[in-house]
Amino acid sequence: MPSFTVYTGSENGHVKPSITTKPDQLTGDQVFLRVTASGMCFTDVHYKHGPNALGHEGIGIVEETGPETTYLKKGDRVGWGYQTGSCGHCLECLQGQEIYCKERSIYGSGNTDQGSFSSHAVMREAFLHPIPDDMSDELAAPLQCAGATVFTPLHDVDSNDTVGIMGVGGLGHIAIQFAAKLGCRVVVLSGSDRKKDDAFKLGAHKFVAMNSSNPEEQLGGWTISRLLVTTSAQPSWDKVLPLLSTRARIYPLSVSEDNFEIPYMPIIMSGFTIHGSLVATRAVHRKMLEFAAFHKIAPVIERFDMSEEGINQAFERLEQGKVQYRVVLLPLKQ
Amino acid sequence: MPSFTVYTGSENGHVKPSITTKPDQLTGDQVFLRVTASGMCFTDVHYKHGPNALGHEGIGIVEETGPETTYLKKGDRVGWGYQTGSCGHCLECLQGQEIYCKERSIYGSGNTDQGSFSSHAVMREAFLHPIPDDMSDELAAPLQCAGATVFTPLHDVDSNDTVGIMGVGGLGHIAIQFAAKLGCRVVVLSGSDRKKDDAFKLGAHKFVAMNSSNPEEQLGGWTISRLLVTTSAQPSWDKVLPLLSTRARIYPLSVSEDNFEIPYMPIIMSGFTIHGSLVATRAVHRKMLEFAAFHKIAPVIERFDMSEEGINQAFERLEQGKVQYRVVLLPLKQ
Repeated sequence: MPSFTVYTGSENGHVKPSITTKPDQLTGDQVFLRVTASGMCFTDVHYKHGPNALGHEGIGIVEETGPETTYLKKGDRVGWGYQTGSCGHCLECLQGQEIYCKERSIYGSGNTDQGSFSSHAVMREAFLHPIPDDMSDELAAPLQCAGATVFTPLHDVDSNDTVGIMGVGGLGHIAIQFAAKLGCRVVVLSGSDRKKDDAFKLGAHKFVAMNSSNPEEQLGGWTISRLLVTTSAQPSWDKVLPLLSTRARIYPLSVSEDNFEIPYMPIIMSGFTIHGSLVATRAVHRKMLEFAAFHKIAPVIERFDMSEEGINQAFERLEQGKVQYRVVLLPLKQ
Repeated sequence: MPSFTVYTGSENGHVKPSITTKPDQLTGDQVFLRVTASGMCFTDVHYKHGPNALGHEGIGIVEETGPETTYLKKGDRVGWGYQTGSCGHCLECLQGQEIYCKERSIYGSGNTDQGSFSSHAVMREAFLHPIPDDMSDELAAPLQCAGATVFTPLHDVDSNDTVGIMGVGGLGHIAIQFAAKLGCRVVVLSGSDRKKDDAFKLGAHKFVAMNSSNPEEQLGGWTISRLLVTTSAQPSWDKVLPLLSTRARIYPLSVSEDNFEIPYMPIIMSGFTIHGSLVATRAVHRKMLEFAAFHKIAPVIERFDMSEEGINQAFERLEQGKVQYRVVLLPLKQ
């Protein structure tokens, strides 16, 4: 019985290799993959004290396909992200909204013995996405969760939307690129001026330092009609709401243990909407990959080895907030 | 120069009559109306310590039309509500979203010398709505604000929506009727069992007393896909969120000085959306009147005289929370 390596968390948070045994016979639409790259996401930090196999931004090459696979074959290159399964028959699944299926497998709550910090993985074909030919493994990896997360609130923009991206980090720096290529006016809101040059290089048209005394003036008459909040800290809404247009859409995209708290009457009087949004449906995930390939969307990455040492180094840098802007783990040359 | 009576607030909150002079010549699309009924809304309470003419749920008969009116004529019966003007040329106006026009006249911030607690009023034709023939003045009045407010989040329901109405009061008791006639499954959430019979009479299919130990069981497997919050106090979200379906829409409809505060992660993980919604656009207002007439939607009202005594009595009862379920002021027989 062949076996392969996955990396798991441990009580003290140190990540270590672990051996997983591949089933002799793949069943259903299972696919056996050799992993060629993995992104690292802040969500991974939340699981590194537990026993789960880590990683949910995987790229790999198909090595073997199960009996009920329908379109993948050995040698195909695919990616997967936060979701790796759903029931297929509930109303959400039938509407193409399988990300909200009650029986979904998502990172941390299903398939917990498989991950993208690994040499190989067994995944369902239904939740694998072909990677466009002209996209490299290392640039494709961060798109599988970060890219999907920011593309969902952007893919249906209106011709004249002014998109506000709050935060220039792992999510934000990809969102800026997507929004610019979607034809939107793009405004970056950041704590200070520190990332101003980066924001403009990525495609922003205006930059607002929120620690300045005059955010509204810096917008120069624009108002934000879609706001993506990608910062881990929740915004000071009193400063942000005056920058929004009537009927603006607000997308909180990061993870928080706090309550979501926002001034009440402006929501009503200006007709704002607040949209919960979790990564992407499979359809939007595929659209995202196609759009990213066509427009050469390129996550800015720092490379680490797919090894015990490399993964722990990467986590340390990520938790210190030093990564600019996304970690990618790559297998050691053999 | 003819004059007429409006009722205004005063510093101590006692409402009193005041004389307004009608312009000799109506200008633009102004219409001079004789008021035949007015609803009273909790929003009126917020203005009864100020100098504004009170009332924003008016029904009246056209007595005279200005030079640029286009379709109303003497003797027509019309209603008006929270909004009485907008610029007509901004993007929101051009999209039929004039309720979000920056230059809108809404109750308390425009046309403050005119109100529906009055003998007469001068209003713009563009913001008057013909009342269907088979609808009485007294039942039409509460629809002009309360009806419009609850119809907006309901008018585009899906075939299989399960609508939750939180609160059986001035707004809620109309919302229950609309939702039932729109073909929805209708669940009423109320603090206790006290209004259970009323809820069923108005059209509810299920009733959940939120002070019970088992709200989820009372839903019997249903989950709420649209929730209208009509209570003045904000809900205990920890109790309410488990009753919602994935991708549920939440509409906070009442007025509050507090922040809007809700657990953060469930919004993301279940894809909930929170919709700020202010009364209705003119198009939705007209659809509401047509729908209400066709389905004989009937606000449950308490009648008071349109007089200093009647108005102050009504306010007292309203502020004590005793009204079941909507106040209507009617002119004294002459």
